[in-house]
Amino acid sequence: MSGPSGPGKAPGREASPGRVIVNGQTPIAGISPYDRGLQFGDGLFETLVCTKGKVRFLALHLERLARGCERLRINLGDIEPLRRELRAVAAAAGNALIKVIVTRGDAVARGYAASGTEVATRVVFQYPLPSENASAARDGIHVRVSQMRYGENERLAGMKHLNRLEQVLARSEVPAEDAAELLVFSSSGFLVSGTMSNVFLVQNGRVRTPRIDRCGVAGVMRRVVLREAAALGIATEEAALTAADVEGAAEMFVTNARIGIWPVRSLDARTFEIGPVTRRLQGHLAPMLENPVDA
Amino acid sequence: MSGPSGPGKAPGREASPGRVIVNGQTPIAGISPYDRGLQFGDGLFETLVCTKGKVRFLALHLERLARGCERLRINLGDIEPLRRELRAVAAAAGNALIKVIVTRGDAVARGYAASGTEVATRVVFQYPLPSENASAARDGIHVRVSQMRYGENERLAGMKHLNRLEQVLARSEVPAEDAAELLVFSSSGFLVSGTMSNVFLVQNGRVRTPRIDRCGVAGVMRRVVLREAAALGIATEEAALTAADVEGAAEMFVTNARIGIWPVRSLDARTFEIGPVTRRLQGHLAPMLENPVDA
Repeated sequence: MSGPSGPGKAPGREASPGRVIVNGQTPIAGISPYDRGLQFGDGLFETLVCTKGKVRFLALHLERLARGCERLRINLGDIEPLRRELRAVAAAAGNALIKVIVTRGDAVARGYAASGTEVATRVVFQYPLPSENASAARDGIHVRVSQMRYGENERLAGMKHLNRLEQVLARSEVPAEDAAELLVFSSSGFLVSGTMSNVFLVQNGRVRTPRIDRCGVAGVMRRVVLREAAALGIATEEAALTAADVEGAAEMFVTNARIGIWPVRSLDARTFEIGPVTRRLQGHLAPMLENPVDA
Repeated sequence: MSGPSGPGKAPGREASPGRVIVNGQTPIAGISPYDRGLQFGDGLFETLVCTKGKVRFLALHLERLARGCERLRINLGDIEPLRRELRAVAAAAGNALIKVIVTRGDAVARGYAASGTEVATRVVFQYPLPSENASAARDGIHVRVSQMRYGENERLAGMKHLNRLEQVLARSEVPAEDAAELLVFSSSGFLVSGTMSNVFLVQNGRVRTPRIDRCGVAGVMRRVVLREAAALGIATEEAALTAADVEGAAEMFVTNARIGIWPVRSLDARTFEIGPVTRRLQGHLAPMLENPVDA
């Protein structure tokens, strides 16, 4: 396991201060060019927030990662060393943003087929925690509808896998200054998500979010919002949502593990009120985000 | 540029004999874990055959690669150093299989958006040329229909990009002994390709292949087959093809830059004749595959 030393710099990199840990070791020589993560995007990732020395929603992140490895048949093995590594990073850093990449590992033969004998590569990136965008959480954000339509594949749906060219292209359509997020529909016309967030609509007091059965990522914060809304007695629904549902929504917000809940103030030319359901969920979640429990 | 020394071994790798060149240099320390190729599959690749000291269809491969970089706005810069590098590898090796990966390069910031200032990473892998599968070319292959349906995204269609989880999962359904290739349809039910090959149907003497406008890779050999069929006076068509077209086909074959043309002898329970059009194209292409011209 990596030592809990303070943040340093990856050699020769100015733009990404922080620390990187490969299979528990640092400094690193680099990733094998034969790694199937590079070759095919054959792997998964997680983005986790550490605050006050603890990893927010650690158990949920690791559960999703383990489930993704199962679906892709990636031999991650025991997840406990990773859990310990993340706890150690959090304890040492206090506040940090962590990205974990798990790939199937080095190719043992040419070609797409996995041999089943690959050994997973595990990379932990530590970044400074970006300062919270208080105005986004308070005043809401401007969102645009992407020109992109996500392809649909139920075999990939839900996983936070490394095939992210769609998100790269969608997010590159518009600079962040012009739209804090882009809303993306699927090739068959259903609402999916943002590029880095899940999306929720509120209508008649009910919280609705797209099903994640044909594309999209099953976000940790999405899961938390659905669970906590239910705990508050707010009706929730995972459904096939269309542009008409967006049109008819009284409130809209986007979520991810870093940002929590950002209300949508405007979508292209239309404006939304930041309504009572969004505010209630934000208020209810705030303590969980600020004071993570290690579970 | 890398020296034309003989094949060696990547350090610590038993399973991939050969040579690997990163940005023209060898030996290599590894790929940066911040490379967007690993982070997001944000890049492209080519697989090229060298035989008799020359690279087969070098110009077509580099043209597709350059076009893909244009579409993804990857700053590959001048392609001539890569062309020289590949020629040098071919001249030194005589026979070899080369894989080229080009990624957008190291991330200059966290998140999906490309900054536009990234500098592409270029990796050249040299493998021994697999011995030709003479029986596949002569007697045809057994193919199965994959359970997978490829997602459709016109922004990605045609490119040989690094988001290949679909191919990994499809190819992993059935061992190579049980099916030399798997035929894959799209989420909306159209025939796309194999996992590593393009597919052609022959009906009433006409050669038909799926359009590459919503998914699939615009294969170099696909392009050569369409061009050479036309040169021979055989009618060709790129069309939206369905299972019914497959059903009604008299001949079927798959293509890629390494295998050339493999006739399909059987698809699940159905058998095909290896017909005159397939044989004529194989005969016509054979000299081009055996004696590449450097163009």
